[in-house]
Amino acid sequence: MITLTSDFGIKDPYVAEMKGVILTINPNATLIDVTHEIEKFNTRSAAFKLASAASYFPEGTVHLAVVDPGVGTQRRAIVIQTKKGFFVGPDNGVLVLAAKNQGIEHIHLLANPKFMLAEVSGTFHGRDVFAPAAAYLDKGGVQIAEFGPEIKDPVTPKYVQVNSSNNSLSGEVLDVDGFGNIITNIAVKEVTFKEGEKIRVGLADDTLKIQFGKAYAEAKPKEPILLVGSHGFLEIALNQESAARKFHIKTGDRVVVNWA
Amino acid sequence: MITLTSDFGIKDPYVAEMKGVILTINPNATLIDVTHEIEKFNTRSAAFKLASAASYFPEGTVHLAVVDPGVGTQRRAIVIQTKKGFFVGPDNGVLVLAAKNQGIEHIHLLANPKFMLAEVSGTFHGRDVFAPAAAYLDKGGVQIAEFGPEIKDPVTPKYVQVNSSNNSLSGEVLDVDGFGNIITNIAVKEVTFKEGEKIRVGLADDTLKIQFGKAYAEAKPKEPILLVGSHGFLEIALNQESAARKFHIKTGDRVVVNWA
Amino acid sequence: MITLTSDFGIKDPYVAEMKGVILTINPNATLIDVTHEIEKFNTRSAAFKLASAASYFPEGTVHLAVVDPGVGTQRRAIVIQTKKGFFVGPDNGVLVLAAKNQGIEHIHLLANPKFMLAEVSGTFHGRDVFAPAAAYLDKGGVQIAEFGPEIKDPVTPKYVQVNSSNNSLSGEVLDVDGFGNIITNIAVKEVTFKEGEKIRVGLADDTLKIQFGKAYAEAKPKEPILLVGSHGFLEIALNQESAARKFHIKTGDRVVVNWA
Repeated sequence: MITLTSDFGIKDPYVAEMKGVILTINPNATLIDVTHEIEKFNTRSAAFKLASAASYFPEGTVHLAVVDPGVGTQRRAIVIQTKKGFFVGPDNGVLVLAAKNQGIEHIHLLANPKFMLAEVSGTFHGRDVFAPAAAYLDKGGVQIAEFGPEIKDPVTPKYVQVNSSNNSLSGEVLDVDGFGNIITNIAVKEVTFKEGEKIRVGLADDTLKIQFGKAYAEAKPKEPILLVGSHGFLEIALNQESAARKFHIKTGDRVVVNWA
Repeated sequence: MITLTSDFGIKDPYVAEMKGVILTINPNATLIDVTHEIEKFNTRSAAFKLASAASYFPEGTVHLAVVDPGVGTQRRAIVIQTKKGFFVGPDNGVLVLAAKNQGIEHIHLLANPKFMLAEVSGTFHGRDVFAPAAAYLDKGGVQIAEFGPEIKDPVTPKYVQVNSSNNSLSGEVLDVDGFGNIITNIAVKEVTFKEGEKIRVGLADDTLKIQFGKAYAEAKPKEPILLVGSHGFLEIALNQESAARKFHIKTGDRVVVNWA
Repeated sequence: MITLTSDFGIKDPYVAEMKGVILTINPNATLIDVTHEIEKFNTRSAAFKLASAASYFPEGTVHLAVVDPGVGTQRRAIVIQTKKGFFVGPDNGVLVLAAKNQGIEHIHLLANPKFMLAEVSGTFHGRDVFAPAAAYLDKGGVQIAEFGPEIKDPVTPKYVQVNSSNNSLSGEVLDVDGFGNIITNIAVKEVTFKEGEKIRVGLADDTLKIQFGKAYAEAKPKEPILLVGSHGFLEIALNQESAARKFHIKTGDRVVVNWA
């Protein structure tokens, strides 16, 4: 099984070209799209979305992720073997977050032309380098060391550290989803307040008192609620409305929560 | 075979998470997307689109549909067994229209934690409750009664009744498709006028005389045509233009047709 | 294996209906979307995207492409057998470019109702005519001649000829991709200048001196680069920005390049 994540969009034939390459090498591959609508060149957003999805796939899954502004330059191409599966893509931070969740075992360069298309373009390594590598890994019978030398220093995305002090947590906005829910990087394990408590939430331009609950519809329509989202992070939402639009929030903005 | 319908969009990892859950339980499942671009929280639009698609799938198909503004509240989760297959989703009207077309046999609650993920969030039953149920149904070897008690009173979406009188039919706009075609709830069996006749059509702000035909390109480019669409309902279209935009039409608007 | 290309969009159930029809006839078909976001009715854009994708799929693949403004009229429905696989769709130019790349062997009309749905609508031959034909071809055991009589005069899209004179090439914009890259119809085999050379490029409103390179990131961020794209055609791009938006370019615009 191979998952695919990219910023290629769904209007162009690029995703299909990757799938054609994979299925030519490995006609029995099961292909599942995570998303191809990552904001163009946004490796941090891709890293978060891939990490969210990857933990729900079965053991042995190969995750192919291509958000690759440096394609054709000196940036490295890598494969990561984890305790649970494989990650293939550029060495720009897109893979490491998801791979760490599974326990990284080895990281190797994709350097062996035997596992690439015969002609490698300077503009589309998704098709010419990463798709073949994923196809061979999924097909089996190849050792990760055959792809190239091992490395120990992968590029890793940097997130603002969550700070916890007296009745207060501060972090940043990891992502805004399609419903406009504001997903922070404050993990459930940091949360010590209880359902039903009113929590003070500081956003870019607003400070609000919001009830901490567990379902969107516990708030009245268009009213805010604070909850732990399905990915295990603290989330600010409106019931059936976009919280991000109402509070003018974007990825990377600071968030502070205070409780009594 | 499992079809998936939702309002989750294609930018977030939510659909992939559902698919990962299904394939972990049932690695041989064939997964087909109906659409994930249902207008957010619009259960009526989802019901129509699911009903349109479901009739073209083979016997035994499991249809998973998640448009679920009440997730995590008291709204019920259900599975419907029909003469042809299964429907899984929230009990908010999203499933019943499609299921009735196939002949409903039994409706049961999804209450048995054995067929859910070990941890059920309050925000994403698509992944934690509905996807596992669909996977087990598709895998086989489970009886619908094992999911929970039978119910007889599913929530059913209400549509405006089609009224037919002397040379006149009135109904409402069921859907506007991506081409801007205006799809009414007036079914082909109500239609007694003949191809080539000029029909008076009353829309929100306009009354038009339109020829009743059978193909879009029978009208001149950007000119209107009245026809029975591919779903078996009366449809107002422009040839290669959006009728909905030109006539300012949205879902739920009234439509009246009169003929000589 | 069957690929699908259309202008149906992803909000409506139309693509799923085609897939349901295919899987009812041939439950083991592997279905891969090229794109369903072709600009509505733009057969030239569909032809280019299908041709780009098709060459990466394995031998025997059936390519189904439905951009079909003339559905239900006298326009013909065809199947093309090439040296490598099959193409199914309307006879309006959408298939021929991709099929020629593989070497056309025979073109037959889809005229035999045995390979159509029992009821054929006037509005959706994708589902009623083309999907069943693709399913039967992929399933095997049917000869192309069984679909209908052979034809020799398929409709073929016309592109502006590339003109090459003294140190100058002129052509047109074939496509603008989702990154805003401007893809011309000037093929790599016409290009005689070398990496590192500064080339004069004439676009709609601008004449620029651009370096000819091989990777987007060889230019500074938001700066232009001229390169041969992954499809083998000359391409004008900005590093991490939309060249088409900056230079106000659309499909069909003329492009001229001059070198020393």
